[in-house]
Amino acid sequence: MPTLVLLRHGQSRWNLENRFTGWVDVDLTAEGEAQATKGGELIQAAGIQFDRVYTSVLTRAIRTSWLALAAAGQAYVPEVKDWRLNERHYGGLTGLNKAETAQKHGDDQVKIWRRSYDVPPPALSADSEYDFAGDRRYAGAVLPLTESLKTTLERVQPYWQDEIAPRLTAGETLLVAAHGNSLRAIVKLLFGLDDAAIIDVEIPTGNPLLIQLSNTLTPVAARYLDESRAQPLPTLP
Amino acid sequence: MPTLVLLRHGQSRWNLENRFTGWVDVDLTAEGEAQATKGGELIQAAGIQFDRVYTSVLTRAIRTSWLALAAAGQAYVPEVKDWRLNERHYGGLTGLNKAETAQKHGDDQVKIWRRSYDVPPPALSADSEYDFAGDRRYAGAVLPLTESLKTTLERVQPYWQDEIAPRLTAGETLLVAAHGNSLRAIVKLLFGLDDAAIIDVEIPTGNPLLIQLSNTLTPVAARYLDESRAQPLPTLP
Repeated sequence: MPTLVLLRHGQSRWNLENRFTGWVDVDLTAEGEAQATKGGELIQAAGIQFDRVYTSVLTRAIRTSWLALAAAGQAYVPEVKDWRLNERHYGGLTGLNKAETAQKHGDDQVKIWRRSYDVPPPALSADSEYDFAGDRRYAGAVLPLTESLKTTLERVQPYWQDEIAPRLTAGETLLVAAHGNSLRAIVKLLFGLDDAAIIDVEIPTGNPLLIQLSNTLTPVAARYLDESRAQPLPTLP
Repeated sequence: MPTLVLLRHGQSRWNLENRFTGWVDVDLTAEGEAQATKGGELIQAAGIQFDRVYTSVLTRAIRTSWLALAAAGQAYVPEVKDWRLNERHYGGLTGLNKAETAQKHGDDQVKIWRRSYDVPPPALSADSEYDFAGDRRYAGAVLPLTESLKTTLERVQPYWQDEIAPRLTAGETLLVAAHGNSLRAIVKLLFGLDDAAIIDVEIPTGNPLLIQLSNTLTPVAARYLDESRAQPLPTLP
């Protein structure tokens, strides 16, 4: 039976500082590390054995997968890292403090950037200190300069279809350790949610979301392994 | 220029307890973790950027690679894990205390098992608690029941030839995070050492061994990144 576990990375340094992070490669805090380890312990307690692990190329998601695998006694599982599982690119907001941005642009505008489905923030400027084009982990890729949740989904979807879905169809059990918005994209695809419904789905950090799938990859059961920190889940299709 | 870094895992729990470990999946101690992190810091200070990382399927080598990559700011580098980079299989000695084994079999016999090139210890018995055949990380593999350094090299060599050497020939920079004897096998192959000479090569734990190679994979320079803990290196071929 195809089985998927989605794991959102734990607290990062910029979560603490309340800054727009996106593709900036900030690391986990000690609390974020503890959340990842706890997630791995829950995975082990549930008896889940992974065939393969997918992460973004951002350290906070990769280290979340490492800490979870180590805690689950499954460090040996093959890992695949791909930028198409990265967090949404926050464009010109990258690095800015969220409160200061709200003062400058107004609460309503910031809420639109953060919570609309298809309105991207302004593009990253050419002279930004956050220029990811020179980063060797993206060599050869055509990179966005800003993203909405919609355009995030548009680069997650081909990776999902080409790389992840075929392994699930083959019956594998997979972990995807990634970010709030790349995981939202996967949930939208799997549960067939419309553009408004996905905005309200909030995946808690460090709480493994276990999704059992039919052979045609329709969700037949879904639950958080830490029930005490669960958030509402979409209705099964 | 093809570049290879060999990194032997740091102290494990059974190093502390003075037991024959081989394929038993014991974890690093806190000191072993610190050694791996130090190794990664030395790699970063040397400006080495990896294209790919190879490890065994044993947790102590994998976590050594993780800690080193994190310390070097290169968590995003692709990783490949393969049992053919495992430590030498210690057969029927697996799990035994080294001092007790010497009392039982005599110092000379234990020295032969530990330090000869081609004398394997007795095979692991069928009812051993250390039966790796049922471990899913080895599914589909034909496993040894004991190994000498010679037979360790005989399973490292095809992996080296088929998977690692072609990437070096293509000019990649690689990290191999593994074990005393699987790394010895690689050093023997690269430096063209005879059976007696390789026995005297002792690679220190957690000290990255940087080897620059010609296009035909002949070593042209080799040094430990932590010079204060270096061991003698073979003469360049």
